[in-house]
Amino acid sequence: MSTTFIHGGTVVSPTGSQLLDVLVDDGTIVAVLQPGSTALATDLAGSADIAIDATGKYVIPGGVDGHTHMEMPFGGTFASDTFETGTRAAAWGGTTTIVDFAVQNPGMRIQDTVAAWHDKAAGNCAIDYGFHQIIGGVDAESLKGMAELVDEGITSFKLFMAYPGVFYSDDGQIVRAMQEAAGLGALLMMHAENGIAIDVLVEQALARGDTAPYFHGTSRAWQLEEEATHRAIMLAQLTGAPLYIVHVSAKQALAQIAEARGEGQNVFGETCPQYLYLSLEEQLGAPGFEGAKWVCSTPLRSREEGHQDELWRYIRTGDVATVATDHCPFCMKGQKDLGVDNFANIPNGIGSVEHRMDLMFQGVKDGRISLERWVDVCATTPAKMFGMYPRKGIISPGADADIVIYDPNGHTSIGLEKTHHMNMDYSAYEGYEIEGHVDTVLSKGSVIIDRNEYLGTKGHGSFVKRGLSQNLI
Amino acid sequence: MSTTFIHGGTVVSPTGSQLLDVLVDDGTIVAVLQPGSTALATDLAGSADIAIDATGKYVIPGGVDGHTHMEMPFGGTFASDTFETGTRAAAWGGTTTIVDFAVQNPGMRIQDTVAAWHDKAAGNCAIDYGFHQIIGGVDAESLKGMAELVDEGITSFKLFMAYPGVFYSDDGQIVRAMQEAAGLGALLMMHAENGIAIDVLVEQALARGDTAPYFHGTSRAWQLEEEATHRAIMLAQLTGAPLYIVHVSAKQALAQIAEARGEGQNVFGETCPQYLYLSLEEQLGAPGFEGAKWVCSTPLRSREEGHQDELWRYIRTGDVATVATDHCPFCMKGQKDLGVDNFANIPNGIGSVEHRMDLMFQGVKDGRISLERWVDVCATTPAKMFGMYPRKGIISPGADADIVIYDPNGHTSIGLEKTHHMNMDYSAYEGYEIEGHVDTVLSKGSVIIDRNEYLGTKGHGSFVKRGLSQNLI
Amino acid sequence: MSTTFIHGGTVVSPTGSQLLDVLVDDGTIVAVLQPGSTALATDLAGSADIAIDATGKYVIPGGVDGHTHMEMPFGGTFASDTFETGTRAAAWGGTTTIVDFAVQNPGMRIQDTVAAWHDKAAGNCAIDYGFHQIIGGVDAESLKGMAELVDEGITSFKLFMAYPGVFYSDDGQIVRAMQEAAGLGALLMMHAENGIAIDVLVEQALARGDTAPYFHGTSRAWQLEEEATHRAIMLAQLTGAPLYIVHVSAKQALAQIAEARGEGQNVFGETCPQYLYLSLEEQLGAPGFEGAKWVCSTPLRSREEGHQDELWRYIRTGDVATVATDHCPFCMKGQKDLGVDNFANIPNGIGSVEHRMDLMFQGVKDGRISLERWVDVCATTPAKMFGMYPRKGIISPGADADIVIYDPNGHTSIGLEKTHHMNMDYSAYEGYEIEGHVDTVLSKGSVIIDRNEYLGTKGHGSFVKRGLSQNLI
Amino acid sequence: MSTTFIHGGTVVSPTGSQLLDVLVDDGTIVAVLQPGSTALATDLAGSADIAIDATGKYVIPGGVDGHTHMEMPFGGTFASDTFETGTRAAAWGGTTTIVDFAVQNPGMRIQDTVAAWHDKAAGNCAIDYGFHQIIGGVDAESLKGMAELVDEGITSFKLFMAYPGVFYSDDGQIVRAMQEAAGLGALLMMHAENGIAIDVLVEQALARGDTAPYFHGTSRAWQLEEEATHRAIMLAQLTGAPLYIVHVSAKQALAQIAEARGEGQNVFGETCPQYLYLSLEEQLGAPGFEGAKWVCSTPLRSREEGHQDELWRYIRTGDVATVATDHCPFCMKGQKDLGVDNFANIPNGIGSVEHRMDLMFQGVKDGRISLERWVDVCATTPAKMFGMYPRKGIISPGADADIVIYDPNGHTSIGLEKTHHMNMDYSAYEGYEIEGHVDTVLSKGSVIIDRNEYLGTKGHGSFVKRGLSQNLI
Repeated sequence: MSTTFIHGGTVVSPTGSQLLDVLVDDGTIVAVLQPGSTALATDLAGSADIAIDATGKYVIPGGVDGHTHMEMPFGGTFASDTFETGTRAAAWGGTTTIVDFAVQNPGMRIQDTVAAWHDKAAGNCAIDYGFHQIIGGVDAESLKGMAELVDEGITSFKLFMAYPGVFYSDDGQIVRAMQEAAGLGALLMMHAENGIAIDVLVEQALARGDTAPYFHGTSRAWQLEEEATHRAIMLAQLTGAPLYIVHVSAKQALAQIAEARGEGQNVFGETCPQYLYLSLEEQLGAPGFEGAKWVCSTPLRSREEGHQDELWRYIRTGDVATVATDHCPFCMKGQKDLGVDNFANIPNGIGSVEHRMDLMFQGVKDGRISLERWVDVCATTPAKMFGMYPRKGIISPGADADIVIYDPNGHTSIGLEKTHHMNMDYSAYEGYEIEGHVDTVLSKGSVIIDRNEYLGTKGHGSFVKRGLSQNLI
Repeated sequence: MSTTFIHGGTVVSPTGSQLLDVLVDDGTIVAVLQPGSTALATDLAGSADIAIDATGKYVIPGGVDGHTHMEMPFGGTFASDTFETGTRAAAWGGTTTIVDFAVQNPGMRIQDTVAAWHDKAAGNCAIDYGFHQIIGGVDAESLKGMAELVDEGITSFKLFMAYPGVFYSDDGQIVRAMQEAAGLGALLMMHAENGIAIDVLVEQALARGDTAPYFHGTSRAWQLEEEATHRAIMLAQLTGAPLYIVHVSAKQALAQIAEARGEGQNVFGETCPQYLYLSLEEQLGAPGFEGAKWVCSTPLRSREEGHQDELWRYIRTGDVATVATDHCPFCMKGQKDLGVDNFANIPNGIGSVEHRMDLMFQGVKDGRISLERWVDVCATTPAKMFGMYPRKGIISPGADADIVIYDPNGHTSIGLEKTHHMNMDYSAYEGYEIEGHVDTVLSKGSVIIDRNEYLGTKGHGSFVKRGLSQNLI
Repeated sequence: MSTTFIHGGTVVSPTGSQLLDVLVDDGTIVAVLQPGSTALATDLAGSADIAIDATGKYVIPGGVDGHTHMEMPFGGTFASDTFETGTRAAAWGGTTTIVDFAVQNPGMRIQDTVAAWHDKAAGNCAIDYGFHQIIGGVDAESLKGMAELVDEGITSFKLFMAYPGVFYSDDGQIVRAMQEAAGLGALLMMHAENGIAIDVLVEQALARGDTAPYFHGTSRAWQLEEEATHRAIMLAQLTGAPLYIVHVSAKQALAQIAEARGEGQNVFGETCPQYLYLSLEEQLGAPGFEGAKWVCSTPLRSREEGHQDELWRYIRTGDVATVATDHCPFCMKGQKDLGVDNFANIPNGIGSVEHRMDLMFQGVKDGRISLERWVDVCATTPAKMFGMYPRKGIISPGADADIVIYDPNGHTSIGLEKTHHMNMDYSAYEGYEIEGHVDTVLSKGSVIIDRNEYLGTKGHGSFVKRGLSQNLI
Repeated sequence: MSTTFIHGGTVVSPTGSQLLDVLVDDGTIVAVLQPGSTALATDLAGSADIAIDATGKYVIPGGVDGHTHMEMPFGGTFASDTFETGTRAAAWGGTTTIVDFAVQNPGMRIQDTVAAWHDKAAGNCAIDYGFHQIIGGVDAESLKGMAELVDEGITSFKLFMAYPGVFYSDDGQIVRAMQEAAGLGALLMMHAENGIAIDVLVEQALARGDTAPYFHGTSRAWQLEEEATHRAIMLAQLTGAPLYIVHVSAKQALAQIAEARGEGQNVFGETCPQYLYLSLEEQLGAPGFEGAKWVCSTPLRSREEGHQDELWRYIRTGDVATVATDHCPFCMKGQKDLGVDNFANIPNGIGSVEHRMDLMFQGVKDGRISLERWVDVCATTPAKMFGMYPRKGIISPGADADIVIYDPNGHTSIGLEKTHHMNMDYSAYEGYEIEGHVDTVLSKGSVIIDRNEYLGTKGHGSFVKRGLSQNLI
């Protein structure tokens, strides 16, 4: 096979940044070299099949988005991105691995749902992908199935404290699943919102005639995220399960995570760009039905209460471990509009798999986080968290050559007519301007994006059999 | 009616202690006087029908036990003290008011259960009594009934996060009841243990063959009390309800209460003598089935983990507001022994309505708490908490003449053959020696205990129609 | 001597409020009675020499201002109120006891400074007074003197972490004084600001030309109050001394106090009305030299940072134990104007001994604190804190008849031409309107204020020999 | 120059561990390669001048000991290791860089003290070295000198809150130095003990006749470390200086650091092996004068109070950033024995520059920390903290070839007759057995230790001109 030599760029890892050359052979990084100083590098530069000049640019591990929902069934419709469209959009945005959620509902065998997810993804993806398993029905059968899935590379299991009657697990089911996860060393992921209480607030809001998207946000009060987060932490403390809280949006929930981490407990927080940039007042509270674009759960939080700033701080302190997208797009027409008279019928989700790397890089430009932390929360820690390191998440010999050449002097305009490749009829970030640009993306050694052109192929991406989390202390 | 003049004693209130004379007329304290210094006092001493010399003794408001369960149905049996035997035993121990729990189960009208409780108590009590209302089934009907009960002097409502299928309320029911309580200004009382999770641990313990009383304690892990306490606090924060957590035994649960109180939230903690003196290792872990004597919920906690010492500290800091008994006695023979092969079948409860004032006074002798704090947590704050102040809980003109003459140089030996008047075939404190003694007890002006003799009458005690809590900030 | 009967009013104590009659004989409260219900009360009402109708009004213990500086030497001038003018103004405002600070400087015998203070006060005061002792020079001699002062009723000793070269004690001196205080059981009072660091910031501000009063505030940054507060607490933890932090103005300092109190340490916080009502931006930042009126230390804090609201909250939670005035008035003309070109030369102090009871009652009207908490922080707890209970701080038989009849429907306009009786040429609260009024003030049984008339006499007030603090846990 | 090829080993970095080959050319790592899979690696293995087989072993960056005191003057004597003996011992133990402290006393120019330190070190060191600057006398002159030192690669400045009259800075001096450091972006290092208070306790202990080494520990109470740590943090918060607290031994001090870090402040904690393994009771409390071996400041802490376990926990949570030695050896004979009658005269210090990597690896074996955290706290973070990354602290192309081949199946017995190469007549860890072994050490490409033989040369080590800290958030 062919060799690729990426030279002149600054390789960024969570530990630091250095001018380094990178040699790729047959889909794998085989060497990292001090540039220029040796005959070796000169030889390699000359002999490589392809040479990429990354001078003045960052050479980073391809993004790992640990939370996506392609073709996810929700409320009678499906998330609008297929594995094909969604992974292609991810590639455009510098993400080279996603971990999607296979969905089990009560009564199904979780093994069967994995098979269904394999069917959906296989042969369709532009980039590599793994699966988490949602257990919507914790029972003896599904608990037994967990060990089997771990053997098959599905090493993380998500439960819901929200959505009674759909995915909801009660605390007894949570305890049992956590015990099983602890025994297996598997990661327990949690949607931490008190769905039982939320349903009461939703019913009361609707009864008052508060049907607009804004009331989606107020019904899912921060207290009910904080509470569920604390509860999940304490049940994990009891059972010994490592715990990963998905899509944290309330600062008070993060304070709970930070406190547990201070005690040395294996508790990890994930947040998403929408919680860092968007707000209850500005987006959910947009006039008319406009706010539906940003209906997702956990909801956007109040800027006045300062959640967004606090979340950035928690990224700096390490209490936010990863930034994922919770990519779950729905079109306004035909999907979001199901809830035009009732926010509770609006499909929950925002699509941003394409913009995560850019939006978080803007955080570097804005002085919110360091360059190294950008790579850490977007690539390295997700890879470790989900047992894919060092194959993913790092520029290192032996790793898959999933590499992004990122231009800190480039520019990206987000919007439907601009950089948008997701299957959505709107953009959640319409009009955002990013002071950086994804120039080139390699997936397993193949250039799939280059100078605003998609060069990838459907089916290039393959399933990643994951190991246990490598992020535990 | 007759007048009584109590002279020479030291009157103790939460604020301080003073040598004061007390004049009682017709069941009510009518004057408090500086002793000796005036002709007035001299006259009064001479003219009173009865003079009680309290020289060298403490003159304190009669104890208010805010948490008892007389004739409580539980697991197919009934708490072994009736209102008659239980209130008489209370009188022996210097308690002159109890607040008992009327019990509603799903489907019952709460008004009917109050009526049933009135029937049980009326004409039988040695001392005054009030009722809280347990709502075992939160629904539109019971919620509507709350306002009616408040009007009738039942101003506090207890829910259970434990006992699924029996008294358990889910978080939606809790939210609704708290909203109603907040609207009424009524106190929401909570049994804060995660019963759903506990049931799993119980089932697992029994499946392992861990059937002894000790495993009652380990199955009700502190994490599940801490969790439920935090959850109740956060739901109260959401709804604005004043919250009173009953029988707190885990130091971590109290830490949660202390934190909320530091924020200025109206959250109050109650503990009981058993959690201050007894432990998982020594009592629940006693050989054979002996531990059944101390099976109650929340359970006794580990002394090694230091819960007992921390609880005393939290009494000093004010984060424990009241000390009640949770008096719920069952005999070993015929009751506790229902669970001889299975701790889950042991009726939950300890009887100590007779010993609370003594046991807590021993805390004064041991340097754990001050004299003033003794009166505060045992009488004044319970009276204020439950809307009976200043009729109860204070030595002050206008108050009911519920008065205890307590001898700090007396002695009380606790045990079946000694001071025991409760209808139990064992004592939870057998062999405890107290460096103090209840000499004389007045209930509404009548001497009902004097020099180890019971002078009271069945039916002397009457129902106290309570107001809203006077303890909110 | 004569008897006075105060009837029809609502007596307020920290524990609660009740309609009660009060009988005073020979300067002392001799009885508290249930109104109307007995022949006794009727007789007393008839036979008393003086009857005061308090119907519709509050009958409260006279205020105890635990922190005043009459005729205090400071920066080459003296606080403008003498014991005569200052205690008369206090009486006007419903305060019937002050505790003033005798001032020792290095090299003086503390016994001599007490004698000097006795000389200043004796025969001049309208109300009773006690002394704390400032130890400006901790050495073997002054340490030895502490025991002697305790015997003479001066049971609290104040050190300064501020004012290097004047009153400043270094941490070694603090340790030694705290050890001595702990041994004696005496209260250690602390001015907690890091004066060494402040002097650097002051020097730098002046060097920058920032000479206006506003920079007094910014130079005494909250970090330097928080730091010193923490340091004092930790040294008290080390030595076992009970600790009272005077004039806390930074919310972060109070958070430190709250945390120590949560651990059960004997640490108490005092604040003053100026920190609850006034701010850095509005008062210290007033145009021109106007801000000099409010130059005091600790300084007024930023309203934008929310200190004022947090302080009110800490009063509710009990972490603020007392509200005193730190009354230390200086006139603008001839005193404050010493610092017209240099804020560091402005005498530090605000006078408000006359307005404390009113200003804090306004907090009741504004829903900030309860009626009971008003009496508690303004009278009862100061009396207990400084070892004068129950002689002061409570309406109870045996107590000095220091009584205020306060009209909650009255009105008080604060200002130079209105209620002002302090010897100041300005009012720190000019234009404040209070929804209440001090109607009548009794000091030891004598009416000294009645219906806006001063009836007291110079020399009526006498020295209160205080005991050890009665507020320790 | 020659090339070295290290193959077959597991390269460990803070991020993870991988089988990787390493190519060294001319003192620098020039390539890191995927082993075996390519012709390239095979060629390199064949063509390298030296091949080192690291199969089954860890290949780690050479240790960076950020805190040593070679030839340090203290109490009339000098630390017994010279730069020659000390750096040689460091090399034996797998440490390839030290940062030593140049010492300025009041009145000296700091530039002169640096020159003196250069003189001592130049031509004598086995490994590379850098300098921090101690400022014993903060004044206009020394403050001005800081900028000059930063330009010369001395980018961290240490102050002392201990040792009044020797190195002590008062809080005003600290503020000024922190302001200067903040302006330069330089790191402010702090010995955080309240020396003023400690001196009182020492004087009192000696006056009581408590002269044994044990009382060194009790006189330096944890409260005085906690207090100074908090104070330093708050002054850093005020001034904006990045703060590094050296040799933290009290868990309470670390709790303060953890809290500040949670707020996002640039505060870092260093601890040392002695605080993780040794204790007040066992070592300082050894019979007779034996305890003198372990007299150092901060002192060893009580095991009963649990400091050691908590410190390990704080390493896991990241609140301890680095583990250094504070290497400051003194011989028992002729040095430590200066204090045989008075612990205050015992030179303060423990030597362990040789054993840090082994002792911390034992922490990996004991399950205290992960392999990655071992490398992180011992090499990578110190390198970043002190501005030497990626030249030091990482196995990466472009880095100095400071490499340790560590055998996890080897064994090291610590003791005078065994692995000891420091110039001390005792070992602080006599009898400790380590389950690992430093097999081979390369400094800048030269093998200086190999199979228990020293192959280095005096003067091989050179001065490292450091940049600003790369560890700030």
